[in-house]
Formats: sequence, structure tokens, C-alpha cells
Amino acid sequence: MITRMSSLFLRTLREDPADAEVPSHKLLVRAGYVRRVAPGGYSWLPLGLRVLRNVERVVREEMDAIGAQEIQFPALLPKEPYEATNRWTEYGPNLFRLKDRKGADYLLGPTHEELFALTVKGEYSSYKDYPVTLYQIQTKYRDEARPRAGILRGREFVMKDSYSFDLADEGLAESYRLHREAYIRVFDRLGLEYVIVSATSGAMGGSASEEFLAVAETGEDTFVRSTESDYAANVEAVTTPAPAEQPVEDKPAAQVHHTPNTPTIATLVDFLNAADLGRTFTAADTLKNVLVKTQVPGAGEWALLAVGVPGDREVDLKRLEAAVAPAEVAMLEEADFARNPFLVKGYIGPGALQANGVRYLVDPRVVRGTAWVTGADKADHHVVDLVVGRDFTPDGVIDVADVREGDPSPDGEGVLVAARGIEIGHIFQLGRKYSDAFGLDALGPDGKPVRITMGSYGIGVSRLVAVIAEQSHDDRGLIWPRNVAPFDVHLVVAGKDEALLAGGEKLAGELSAAGVDVLLDDRKASPGVKFADAELVGTPTIVVVGRGLANGVVEVKDRRSGERVEVPVDDVVRHLVELVRG
Amino acid sequence: MITRMSSLFLRTLREDPADAEVPSHKLLVRAGYVRRVAPGGYSWLPLGLRVLRNVERVVREEMDAIGAQEIQFPALLPKEPYEATNRWTEYGPNLFRLKDRKGADYLLGPTHEELFALTVKGEYSSYKDYPVTLYQIQTKYRDEARPRAGILRGREFVMKDSYSFDLADEGLAESYRLHREAYIRVFDRLGLEYVIVSATSGAMGGSASEEFLAVAETGEDTFVRSTESDYAANVEAVTTPAPAEQPVEDKPAAQVHHTPNTPTIATLVDFLNAADLGRTFTAADTLKNVLVKTQVPGAGEWALLAVGVPGDREVDLKRLEAAVAPAEVAMLEEADFARNPFLVKGYIGPGALQANGVRYLVDPRVVRGTAWVTGADKADHHVVDLVVGRDFTPDGVIDVADVREGDPSPDGEGVLVAARGIEIGHIFQLGRKYSDAFGLDALGPDGKPVRITMGSYGIGVSRLVAVIAEQSHDDRGLIWPRNVAPFDVHLVVAGKDEALLAGGEKLAGELSAAGVDVLLDDRKASPGVKFADAELVGTPTIVVVGRGLANGVVEVKDRRSGERVEVPVDDVVRHLVELVRG
Repeated sequence: MITRMSSLFLRTLREDPADAEVPSHKLLVRAGYVRRVAPGGYSWLPLGLRVLRNVERVVREEMDAIGAQEIQFPALLPKEPYEATNRWTEYGPNLFRLKDRKGADYLLGPTHEELFALTVKGEYSSYKDYPVTLYQIQTKYRDEARPRAGILRGREFVMKDSYSFDLADEGLAESYRLHREAYIRVFDRLGLEYVIVSATSGAMGGSASEEFLAVAETGEDTFVRSTESDYAANVEAVTTPAPAEQPVEDKPAAQVHHTPNTPTIATLVDFLNAADLGRTFTAADTLKNVLVKTQVPGAGEWALLAVGVPGDREVDLKRLEAAVAPAEVAMLEEADFARNPFLVKGYIGPGALQANGVRYLVDPRVVRGTAWVTGADKADHHVVDLVVGRDFTPDGVIDVADVREGDPSPDGEGVLVAARGIEIGHIFQLGRKYSDAFGLDALGPDGKPVRITMGSYGIGVSRLVAVIAEQSHDDRGLIWPRNVAPFDVHLVVAGKDEALLAGGEKLAGELSAAGVDVLLDDRKASPGVKFADAELVGTPTIVVVGRGLANGVVEVKDRRSGERVEVPVDDVVRHLVELVRG
Repeated sequence: MITRMSSLFLRTLREDPADAEVPSHKLLVRAGYVRRVAPGGYSWLPLGLRVLRNVERVVREEMDAIGAQEIQFPALLPKEPYEATNRWTEYGPNLFRLKDRKGADYLLGPTHEELFALTVKGEYSSYKDYPVTLYQIQTKYRDEARPRAGILRGREFVMKDSYSFDLADEGLAESYRLHREAYIRVFDRLGLEYVIVSATSGAMGGSASEEFLAVAETGEDTFVRSTESDYAANVEAVTTPAPAEQPVEDKPAAQVHHTPNTPTIATLVDFLNAADLGRTFTAADTLKNVLVKTQVPGAGEWALLAVGVPGDREVDLKRLEAAVAPAEVAMLEEADFARNPFLVKGYIGPGALQANGVRYLVDPRVVRGTAWVTGADKADHHVVDLVVGRDFTPDGVIDVADVREGDPSPDGEGVLVAARGIEIGHIFQLGRKYSDAFGLDALGPDGKPVRITMGSYGIGVSRLVAVIAEQSHDDRGLIWPRNVAPFDVHLVVAGKDEALLAGGEKLAGELSAAGVDVLLDDRKASPGVKFADAELVGTPTIVVVGRGLANGVVEVKDRRSGERVEVPVDDVVRHLVELVRG
């Protein structure tokens, strides 16, 4: 096919849009791929729609290849199924809600777990029907508090969401594995640099939830990766290796010290090192006990929770929230301290916590046999050499201390470094939440019902267009990977004389006949304007029909490397077909 | 590709759904193409989505072929552009409205004229940029009062809407012509029986608006067509041929008669024929004057309007509404008669109307020189031989009498018969309504602004799936035209023995390798169940691998004609490839 710049609905912009901060947003607007219609709402102009469709195609092919079957739900959905799962309420202000002319409640679907579960329940009844995996590529809606970065975080966007339905956990694990591999193929074909991070700490099973993050400085998600291995994880999911346990017998006895004016770890360490106790202390030798309160959903009451972490660490609130979920967590207020006078602020120790029945969980580093300086439950007093397993025994382990660059990688190879990324995919062993909500059972071979277990898998299809742009551009414009480029070849006629234009038209016709998708710049504009637009639009190969034509050559330029070669006109179709087919 | 019934997400139903009335709705649900999710909201199961995509493809190809460029807008739109054109209000309860988390007003787009106009204004500025035609294939929303008939009239549906932008009326006419031809190609390729009807009476130009109606008994739209020619029109658009004018000089003088107890045309005609006036009267000789009132939008006041039609005709309210639009029309109330005592109910004549300044429009049959029996503006009195152009002169013509089967076709060939149809496309020379609203101008060659003129063109893409089903089915199930069928071939393995299944798999593999899309029924079900499902699903060609396989033949059945032929296994791939390629 030949698309002519002279009639293409495209006007490139010389200036970045005022509201754009990230490169993909700037370039997709400047190069005429998308236009803003509303906060978080964008229209796809011809170039953008071509790239979007190409991304969709790659996703669809890989989903079909694992036997997933495509269906499509409405975006406008009745409230009832989302009430049954409580998501009508839980989604809070992120859900677009509306009423129809009869006053019935509707929502614009943010994800479709409910509909998929109900649909499978409607069609399937026997264990022989399973497993099945269904997907859709569909427009979704979320009323983001801060839509930003163009199509990276919109309020209307295209997602591929799929759901697997299995009779047993092993089946779910296999469906999950198939998706994981399909996602790897999708993101590889799209030429992305990405990592697969554990999304949860493993409380739900080691591989129950993983995110695919495209590496991008502008990303909203933080993750850590190993300097030496493939290990990568959300900060919430990092597991701290526990040191070896030690014998308790040879440890010095615990001693309470009067430590006036040591309400902070730093003042405490200074005091200890000045006190001539025969050794040097660091913050890592102290045990800081942080008090919070938690509430199980529907419980109505808050319970105290003490978290013990080495004094050189802080409790990471996001890690703490992930660790106690679905319980909520909150800081203590003055009233809480007043109600619990045994909590001596700045000097809280294991003794008072355990004597008063406060649940006490400690960092994985606080293993049996380790000795700590910690609060003595009395103002201006600390205890030194309080030994785990001898002087106190915590109620359990909680891995919520902050993760730092330089920490050892949990897989034992290298150390962690921080990085930023953009979520492009999420795979999740959802389990039976939705099949429980809707009674999704199969009749088993023994005539008894089997509760179906589900997996949930998402890819941000429209977001991917921006993510690719984010990873693949330079200061002159976009650089599309061949698999998603809006055209195979951008053919620039560099000059206005008739012979050049005729030569360009002829070559475009031959390329098109050979199955190459050509954007032909047949405008009357100057070569400089045309070259700048070609760089901005970002088709991977730029062909220049210029003065060389008289000598029987055209120039073929690689957009990414900038490399140019002169190719004889007689050979250029073969040359380009080879390039395009890879 | 091979799709296996053993794993296809499809469960056919033996019973019609309780809420279905029309054949397409019953069959699309029974055959597992769609499922109801909400009133007017349907999910597309795998078979349905395949047909929908095939219809989309045909529409897209023909739009691309006329140089229209595909873009895509959000469905969730801000209020402001629709306020600028007053459609935010005019749409009334048909519009889905909602608020975002900040309380800003949004709507779910019913059509996108505003966005298209604004987008072109945003990109284009010079006369050199034009003409341009843009389109999208997109999900639209209308809060129908009575969603019905499955996907025939849903509240969420897929439409192709396109808009042409031209500098001048001649350009618009050409864009319109291109669309008209593209639509003919689309509907022909989809194998539809349809008519193109004038949608308006021509006040806006003869071809300013046409509808494509698929002929269907279950259709909601009524139209008339000629028995002898291609003429077809909406009833609102039928033009009544005017008879030749006659000389007034030789007509008898008008005479007022006392006609007691003749408040209706029938009683009047009986009275006249009993009165021995020397000739026979029919209702068609009388002139009935119907009083209504009209209000121009924003006028605030209603004005009387008298409509004179032959006494054997009624005023057709829909034709009247179309004729006076954009003014509103209403019947008179008692208070109106009380305010205008010159209106003598049952005996209203041209005299009092014109003496009192009431606008008086008459049927096209009421031409100069015709003589009428009509009211004498006095109870129990009529006037006979009141001659147009001698005794009264109407203010103009209004073509709003009811149209009847047997009326002469306006093109002079044959007579009209009534038929029912379903609107599948609409083409409309919209003009400058939206370019006026948004100041969409191009800078002309003389440096002066040129106001752009628009055309608006729609195809009901998802509705077409139902329309095709409505026109193409029998009592056993659906019968898809080849261009949109979910599969090329439905291959039934009629039996459970291994050799048959192996033969079916082998043939499916060979067909797939030859580019034929195969639905392979590899289930353990009985041949009877498989045959019934094959008829219901409606793939155009059914291949049966059964007992004949041992003798080297398979059966190839045409779903539409029911014709069966035995084809040697060695030849069947060639045979089917030929069938499929047409």
C-alpha cells in the first residue's frame, strides 16, 4: 500500500505540547500520532491508530497461539455483578458510575472479572468443559486521580485482559505459565526492554503474581534488580535473606543501661560508643520497635502490631501494607499511646510488648541467637545484649524494612540496585475469589461440584504504544521497531522536479506491489522539512529519492543507527523487501 | 486455521431465548454468537466476534478505497463541544451522561460530529489541505427507550461513522457520491437485499440525505417502493405528483349549501349524493382543512397552520413533522378553538382562514383550476365548486397527506407498495451546521476564510450482523454469506471411530494449509447433534467425513441450498478451495 503525505491527515508540530513532560507524550503529539480530547482522553490519528493496531495484532497472535479464545464484552455494565463482589464500592472514585434513563446504576468497566466468570458459568457446567481461557482486547475506563503522560496513564485506554478457568491449582499453574511465556513473546516481539518482577512477597505462592515492567526512567513504578543475575522484584516483594541462627549459650547476659537523652537511634549509638562498653556499636546493632495498628476488613476494631527492625532501617509503609493486606494499617495516635501506658515512646522493648499481649513481628535479620540493643520500656533506659531465643521470642517474622541499593540480592547473586519502570503486563493466580462470588462450579466426574479457580492476566495495549516510544526515540523523533511501525518505508522525494517525483512514484508502486507498506512524501515541501518529518515520524527505514537518481541510485537510511547506503535503483526493491522481512 | 468444536467456547441452545421476538435475535443467541449482559448490552462470543470483525473488514476496505482515513476518538467525551452545538440538551434522555471524580460533565458519544469538526480545525488551516474524509469504526452509546431485538437495537453498538470536509458544495456532492457508491459496494459484498430511500422530501436538495434500508418484515422503518421501477423512499420523503392545472373560466360558480348533520366527510358525501346536484361526489372531491399549530425553535409562540388535503386522505403526522421541521407541531386544544371563534369545527373553509390571516397550505393535488367541496365557515354549511385560483389562493403547497399502496410512483412508473426495512446506512449532506458552530474555516487562495461544508455518513456495523442473520436463515439456523461467515468450512466427523477422526483431522490440516478456515467438529457427540449444530451455526459449506470415507469420498453440503455432492477425498481440497474463493 502507498500512503501519500500530500493527503495524509497529519500535521507535525515544531513545539512540544505545553502539558507534556515525558518524551513519549511529547513525540506522539508532535509527530501527529495522538491528540488530547479531554483529561486522560486521546484520539488516535491515522499514524497512531496504525501502531495501536499493530500492537493489538502481536498481542492477539500470541494469545491465540496459547489457545485463548477472543470474545468481547460491553464497556457499559450493570452494577449488580460488581456489587456481588463488592468492587462497586471498593473501586471508590476510580470507577466511572452513571445512571440510565430509568435510574438504573451502571459503570464503565475497569476490568471484567465478574463478566468473564458469569459468562463461563452461563455456558459451561461439566468438568469436561475445562480448562478454558478467554480474552478480549477492549476499551476500559478508570477515573484516575491524576491522568498523566498522554496515553501512558489515560482514563480511557485499550487493554487485553484474559482469564483462565481451571478445575485445580495445577491447571491454574499451567495456564499461568502459558501466559507468562506468551507475554515474554509479545514483549520480545515489540522490542521492549523489560523485567518480570514478583509482585507479592510470596505469601500467596512464589509465582502467584508477577508484573512485567518496561524499564524507563520516567516510570511510576520502582523496582529493584540484581547487579549480577536476572533477579528483579517490586520493592514490596523483595525477600530479605535471613542470616544463620547462632547459639545463645555463649552470649553475654542482657544488661539494662541508663541512657539519658537517647530518644533516637543516632543519639543512642553515640551514647553507647561513648560509654566504653568494650566494643563499637552501629545502628544495625539496635532493634527499633515500631508500633502500628491494623484492622481486618469488617472487624470493626483495630489491634496493635509491633514491628521490630534493625535500627539502621525504616519500616517501608508500602511493604507493610502489602504484608498485612487485606488488613488495613494505620499509625498510632496520641490517644492510642494514652490508652496503652506500657508503651514508653522511644524506649519500647520486647518485654512490655509481650507482657501486654501485643503481637510482635520482627525483621528476618532478627534470628535466634542475635543480640540487640533495644528499649527497656522505661524512659532513658535501654537494654544491651538482649538475645533472640533466650531473652525474648517474637511472634513471627515480617519482611517490611526498607530495601536499599547495595542490599544483597535475595537469590544470592550480586546486590540490589533500584530502577524505575512502567507496568505493561500483569499475570496473577487469582484463585477462587470470583468463582466463590458467583458459585462457578463444574460438575465433577463423581457428580460433586468442583469450584473453578481463575487466573487473571492483563496487558496495557494502548499504553504499550507510549512505552515503545518511551524506550525508542532520540532527539529527532520516534524510532519504531519494525513489528509495530506505521509503515515499512518512508520514501522521501527530495526535490520538486517532475523526474524525481515520477521516480518516487514508480519506486513506491514497485515496493507496494512487493508487499511493502510505503509512506510516500510527495509534498511540495523542501527536502529539509521532509527529512525532519521523516525522522520525527520514525519509520525504521527512510529511502531518499534525490539527485542520485540521475546516476541510478537512491539512498537507504536506517532511522535508528543513522547509517546510509546508496543502492542502485534496479536493486532497491529486493534490498528493501529483505530489510522489511528481517 | 483449524478451530475445534471440542474446545471452542460455544454451547448452542435448543430453545429460543424468552426475550427474543425476531429471528436474528433468536438464532444469534441459540447458535452462541452473542449473550445478553444488560438491556441493550451484549457480549460477543467467539463466533459472533468473528462475524463482526468480518463485517468491519468489508466496511474498512471500502472506506479505505475511497480515500477515507481511519482515526479513533474516545467514547467518553467532555460536555463542552456538545454544548456548543446544543446537542447536550437536544439529545434528551437518549444520551448517557455522567460526571467524573471532579464533578465535570461527560457523555458517552452517540455520534462524533463535534469531535471530527474540532479535530480537522485543529490540524488543517489552508484551502490546500482540503478535501479530507475521516472515519472511525467505534463503539457508540444511546440510551434507547426500548432497546430490542438483541443487537438490532442495542444501547452499546459498533458504528462506522465518517465525515467529509469540503471547501464547496460541489466537493460535498462528490464526497457524498463516493460514499454512496462505497455503501453500495459494502452492502452488495455483504449479500444484503436493500433499498436506498430518500430520507427527506428534497427541501434540502434532491440527494441531500438517503437511507439504506435492508428489506425485512421485522424492520422498524416503513418505506414505499414502486412496483415497476427502482424508486423507493421513506414515507416522509414521498412526493405527490401534481395534476395539470386547469382553466378556471369554464367552472360553475361556487354555491353555498345548507348541509345539516355533515360533520364528517362520509356524511357530507352521502348528503351531496342524495341532494341531486347533477353529479356524483366522492370523498376525493372534498377539501378537508386540518388545523394544527407550529412553533419555530426558540420562538416562544405557537402559530396556527391550516393544511388542506383531499377528503379521502388523512394528514400523516410524521410527514407533517418532517415538512415543518425544525419547527414543532401540535394538535389544537379546545382553548385554541375558543380563542379563534372563526374556526367552525367540521365546517372550516379557506374563506375564514385567509380572512383571519391563518397560514394555509394545501396538498399538491389542490392545483389551480380544481373545484372542491369544502367548509363554508358556518355550522351545517358547505360550499360546492370552490375553485382554486378563482375563489381562493392558498399560501403554498405542503405534501403531508398519507401515502397509500396503489398511489402512483413519483417517478411515473408503476404504483407504490409498502414495505418494511431496517436502517443499515445513512448518508447526509450535513452542510455547515458544525463548521459554523466551531468556526471551521480554511484560508482561501485569496486570503479570505472559506467556511467548510461537511457530509456525515454512518453504517451500523454491529447491527449488520443481525441484519444479515435476519435476511439469511431458515428454520434450522443461520446461513452466512461467505464474506462474513465465521469459518469457510464446517467439517463434521460423523462417527466416533478413530479412522474417521484421523481422516477428519488430516483433511482439516490440508484445508488449513491451503488457506481455508475450518471449524472441525471433533466432539464425541452423535452425528445428529453435530449436524444440527452445523445447520444452526450456519457456515456456508458443511463437509461430512463419514462412512463414505472408507470408499474414498466425503460429502460436501451447501448450507443454503441443501444440495449435497460426494467428492473424492483426493479432490476435496481443490474442490473446497474453489468454492471458498468463489
